[in-house]
Amino acid sequence: MTRRLSELLRVPPGAVDLRAIDPRGTPGLPRSAGKDPKTWARAQLPILGAELFAWQEKLFAQAKTGASRQRLLLLLQAMDCGGKDGTIKKVVGEFNPQGVHIVAFGKPTEEELAHDFLWRIERGLPGAGMIGVFNRSHYEDVLVVRVHNLVPPRTWRARYAKINRFERKLVADGCAVVKVMLHISPAEQKQRLLDRLDDPTKYWKYDSGDIDERALWPAYQDAYADALGKCDSDDAPWYVVPADRKWYRDWAVANLLLEKLRELSPAYPPADFDPDVERGRLVTQPEVNSG
Amino acid sequence: MTRRLSELLRVPPGAVDLRAIDPRGTPGLPRSAGKDPKTWARAQLPILGAELFAWQEKLFAQAKTGASRQRLLLLLQAMDCGGKDGTIKKVVGEFNPQGVHIVAFGKPTEEELAHDFLWRIERGLPGAGMIGVFNRSHYEDVLVVRVHNLVPPRTWRARYAKINRFERKLVADGCAVVKVMLHISPAEQKQRLLDRLDDPTKYWKYDSGDIDERALWPAYQDAYADALGKCDSDDAPWYVVPADRKWYRDWAVANLLLEKLRELSPAYPPADFDPDVERGRLVTQPEVNSG
Repeated sequence: MTRRLSELLRVPPGAVDLRAIDPRGTPGLPRSAGKDPKTWARAQLPILGAELFAWQEKLFAQAKTGASRQRLLLLLQAMDCGGKDGTIKKVVGEFNPQGVHIVAFGKPTEEELAHDFLWRIERGLPGAGMIGVFNRSHYEDVLVVRVHNLVPPRTWRARYAKINRFERKLVADGCAVVKVMLHISPAEQKQRLLDRLDDPTKYWKYDSGDIDERALWPAYQDAYADALGKCDSDDAPWYVVPADRKWYRDWAVANLLLEKLRELSPAYPPADFDPDVERGRLVTQPEVNSG
Repeated sequence: MTRRLSELLRVPPGAVDLRAIDPRGTPGLPRSAGKDPKTWARAQLPILGAELFAWQEKLFAQAKTGASRQRLLLLLQAMDCGGKDGTIKKVVGEFNPQGVHIVAFGKPTEEELAHDFLWRIERGLPGAGMIGVFNRSHYEDVLVVRVHNLVPPRTWRARYAKINRFERKLVADGCAVVKVMLHISPAEQKQRLLDRLDDPTKYWKYDSGDIDERALWPAYQDAYADALGKCDSDDAPWYVVPADRKWYRDWAVANLLLEKLRELSPAYPPADFDPDVERGRLVTQPEVNSG
């Protein structure tokens, strides 16, 4: 592709209009995808995965020596059935699990509510060398909290600036941030809810409250538009990934991560020892027997 | 195979003699593995992985409704270069990362040292529905701590009983435990250390202290033998997995997990709603437009 996916999917400057973004769209898909782009994209995933895995090892390795605090946070937001879990399974599943730190932010506990809204977020941040994944995030505090009037408007309105300050500090501290909204249509959500009701192995994913939330779709979309518009920055940009087609969603998120990792370009650290000296020590060591 | 791998690899009753277990052995490998068992075992891994993944989803699902606190902890111990990281990458990598909680226990921090040795272990336990992985564990407190005399003998000697009580409580609380010692030979360790010294992309895995530790091999084997013998129980058995051959190691650990998951037999929870009622609510809901 001529333009990078991170340019194509970045929220446009100014007021965000999510209705202008087609949830069934496939921006940036190359011509080589051909007439069966689904099969193509599914076959691409392990290839992209191998490169993600290789970058991750370098990120992890360079933190090991304490020389770098670089890390990467993938933040996922979506309406119910938007595909956050599926994206984690398929895309994040390509990484070495030992270097991944996934945190799902549900309804806040009493302890969490007793603190500032960013308290639990700070505690969930990835350490140096890690790939962090937020399944929902501090953005819920300007989304569900706003739609359900859980705090006064002046409280949630003040949060956009707080979030921007928080993320700016985070990026300055070496934590790169990729923020993704998985964008689905109401029709696709309805189909996915029906699928869950038709399949006993999916009942556990169904929550009858989802239908009530669904009725608030326009209010949520307004809240998303504001959050994305007010909290997009060059340091911590927002991407809207059309997500009605799961194969496109996975391909796109993998590519967004890959573009960021290439930009970070972590590298294996140099030896903090002399390999020849160590080899000599090892070879001349008295034979070790098995005890 | 006629006997389950969990029977074949379980430490024998009585005093454990690790020298009697061949690190290059491949116990339980079926005849069907044929003349190229490495290729066979590598091809088996994704098949075993698919079954692990399926069981994991049920384990995760049944915890979601709060009806079950069942979870599974894989505990890995080994000499340096024993393959803990490789096992996590290859075997644990087959699970859905969202249901995996991996904790690596390194040299204790000052805060950790200020508490009982099981304090940090408790904090690292998997939640309901999760697959927990311990990369090293509380056993270090009767291994490295004993070999280096970091506490008086009466202190570490008292820990075997404490560990047994802790693990018994854990299992009673719904956390199944699979304890694996990856058993390598001193010759294999030497080769792996040399490999790290020969490859700049592996320097970060090398620690010059590993050679000093290697000189203490017999003392470590004694400490392992005691730990495995004194802390093996039907509830929380110890398995010794011959680990000089990585392909056997991965195949064996995957099978041990699988046997335990089949035994636990987690199941999708029943609906806590009436699917027909919900379908009706959804279908009769006023059309939701995209806002």
